[in-house]
Amino acid sequence: MKLTVVKIGGNVIDNPAFCEQFLKDFSDIPAPKILVHGGGKVATQVAEKLGIETVMVEGRRITDKAMLDVVTMVYGGLVNKSLVAQIQHFGDNAIGLTGADAGVILSKKRLVKAIDYGFVGDIEQVNSTFIASLLEQGIVPVFAPLTYDKEGNMLNTNADTQAQAIAVAMTETYEVNLVYCFEKKGVLSNPDDDDSVISVLKPADYESYKASGAINKGMIPKLDNAFKALTDGVAQVTICHAREVKLAVKDGIAGTKIIQ
Amino acid sequence: MKLTVVKIGGNVIDNPAFCEQFLKDFSDIPAPKILVHGGGKVATQVAEKLGIETVMVEGRRITDKAMLDVVTMVYGGLVNKSLVAQIQHFGDNAIGLTGADAGVILSKKRLVKAIDYGFVGDIEQVNSTFIASLLEQGIVPVFAPLTYDKEGNMLNTNADTQAQAIAVAMTETYEVNLVYCFEKKGVLSNPDDDDSVISVLKPADYESYKASGAINKGMIPKLDNAFKALTDGVAQVTICHAREVKLAVKDGIAGTKIIQ
Repeated sequence: MKLTVVKIGGNVIDNPAFCEQFLKDFSDIPAPKILVHGGGKVATQVAEKLGIETVMVEGRRITDKAMLDVVTMVYGGLVNKSLVAQIQHFGDNAIGLTGADAGVILSKKRLVKAIDYGFVGDIEQVNSTFIASLLEQGIVPVFAPLTYDKEGNMLNTNADTQAQAIAVAMTETYEVNLVYCFEKKGVLSNPDDDDSVISVLKPADYESYKASGAINKGMIPKLDNAFKALTDGVAQVTICHAREVKLAVKDGIAGTKIIQ
Repeated sequence: MKLTVVKIGGNVIDNPAFCEQFLKDFSDIPAPKILVHGGGKVATQVAEKLGIETVMVEGRRITDKAMLDVVTMVYGGLVNKSLVAQIQHFGDNAIGLTGADAGVILSKKRLVKAIDYGFVGDIEQVNSTFIASLLEQGIVPVFAPLTYDKEGNMLNTNADTQAQAIAVAMTETYEVNLVYCFEKKGVLSNPDDDDSVISVLKPADYESYKASGAINKGMIPKLDNAFKALTDGVAQVTICHAREVKLAVKDGIAGTKIIQ
């Protein structure tokens, strides 16, 4: 059976009208389906008002205990439950989850190397049986980017990686289609030209684009996740604009198709 | 089959050491079991830092849109997920839920009468089938005091009432024991004497204590919920100190036993 896993980025969440349209489109995608969401700027805004400084290193948030409380509130509470309530309103029976809920995504606190990211988790295990039991009941799981360290703590976790890990885990029982949605039309061959979408990206091309600098920064971990998903058994991976999610799922003709 | 529904008040949540001991004791209670938690002062503290004024009328929070976001963050995110992670750590497989998740508790925004409570919900329906499916998988549902209005919005909901509604709904398939835990030893015959615990409370006594003013304020809605639970089919209702939860569940000899 086919399963669609959609990841939605923080930039979509930050724009209420854009997000609402995305959720309407998401409701038109046939079940079974899963949504994984990123964080967005709300966490930074809430942290600032609470007097907690946001420190980013290479686009990743440093998560001390105070910041962990903020992301648990904002990602696991405000963002996750707002998405769940809206998805319910558009007709799907959504359930919001963090990795701690039903022990569904277990992770390990990242070891301190050059940078101490703090309470940040690297995923070790996805409980695909529990997720499948929800899907079989017609329920749409909506994941916040938070996982569980098995020792009583939440861990802040990269949503792209989480979507990949969930997609891979579900290949045990499903033919999985993974779609990364964000605010660009796809992977660009020229970062300054929003229309320079690469329609099909193979590993050799990826290496060339990286070498030339055309693909850089945040696109690199996203694409590493995309290729890893394919290597580990996901049937199809697409990176596209959030407003093209239906096209990407239905025909696979939107955005950038990642192939091996 | 027996089911234990425990409600834990905000005063317990506000004290980390007290809360941890309670969760350890809760982990010793045999499954199936459900935890319903209140809010605590964290929402007020977070609201204050965010520049949102807290207005309470007769012990109830007035919930405008800004305050709804705060309680969704704090109750649905920070408090709920912290409890879930700790319960996981003590060995039970907990899942955190608001009423929007899997549409498990549907409510209606309270009509404006003398007081406009704002985004506050009165419960209309509890999806006992979904809750039972979790219990059958050995999962412990942990409910935040938030419900869903079926129109895309969360609603702030009284946790005592929510515990009662869940307990009543589960009587379809279970013999339900409802335990309200808080920071007093039980219902007191003299509010100024913490040891004046009424061991058994019948409706007629309740009316007398109310008439004399010995039972007043926040105890009245709590006891109204307790009596309604019994009327609607819950087998046993106890109001006790959080540190006596195991005694209350095991032998029914702690705190105040509510009887018809």
